[in-house]
Amino acid sequence: MKEALPEINLKAIGTVRNEIKDPVWRPSEDVVSEIVVDSSLTEALDNLDEFSHIIVLYWVHKSPRRAPVKVRPRGNPENALKGVFATRSPDRPNPIGKSTVRLLERRGNALKVRGLDAIDGTPVLDIKPYMPGYDSVDDARAPSWVVKR
Amino acid sequence: MKEALPEINLKAIGTVRNEIKDPVWRPSEDVVSEIVVDSSLTEALDNLDEFSHIIVLYWVHKSPRRAPVKVRPRGNPENALKGVFATRSPDRPNPIGKSTVRLLERRGNALKVRGLDAIDGTPVLDIKPYMPGYDSVDDARAPSWVVKR
Repeated sequence: MKEALPEINLKAIGTVRNEIKDPVWRPSEDVVSEIVVDSSLTEALDNLDEFSHIIVLYWVHKSPRRAPVKVRPRGNPENALKGVFATRSPDRPNPIGKSTVRLLERRGNALKVRGLDAIDGTPVLDIKPYMPGYDSVDDARAPSWVVKR
Repeated sequence: MKEALPEINLKAIGTVRNEIKDPVWRPSEDVVSEIVVDSSLTEALDNLDEFSHIIVLYWVHKSPRRAPVKVRPRGNPENALKGVFATRSPDRPNPIGKSTVRLLERRGNALKVRGLDAIDGTPVLDIKPYMPGYDSVDDARAPSWVVKR
């Protein structure tokens, strides 16, 4: 059966601002970024600062749009090829990044966060509160070739 | 400063198949779904079954595209209005859903999962492995008006 898969149009809701100007594999966990949200959506950020952590979905705009089906994790040529959906490679069919970050401050339409894995100018697609229990798994298992960051 | 926010075009990579035919607020955590991925991406699923849990990003295609900036959590009229980005409401500016689910089985281009919070026919945007430590937060804080599901 051939599926007819739809095309979907999004509009970014905001932009990442930080000191990371070049695409790199992994910005440091300590980088502080600002997410500047479109001013029409300022009130949509209300109550977010009642959460310690948020989930940011963003568009990896520097990713080539012809994604490979297999990649070497963390871009390391010594790593064996893995299916791209089994990795967090930014070079994926729809290059959407997901970072869980600490929310340091909300001021108007700007969020200051720590640990966002995105470079300056990255378009932001969605912001969600991190909900312990719903977003976390106690007994999750990952293979040994996965290391944190 | 007025930001020029880009429009972004995606193509779904697959489709959710399950018994939930009507939009409802929350399908049960126990629902088993199948994610049928485009056959051109079958190999991109390799190695995914080395993980116990996966993160599914999907397009909430039944969501109205004029999202409110404030919503009542879980659609309950007794709940006070909250900024939509402080909730998991599907009615959001870019209605992208995120579920962390247990991967039961991978067979060819199909993934069988438990706990996917999406109805039959939902377009899938991305699939990622759940990585403990990277996707989970030990000391996260959420306000008391949040309850799991």
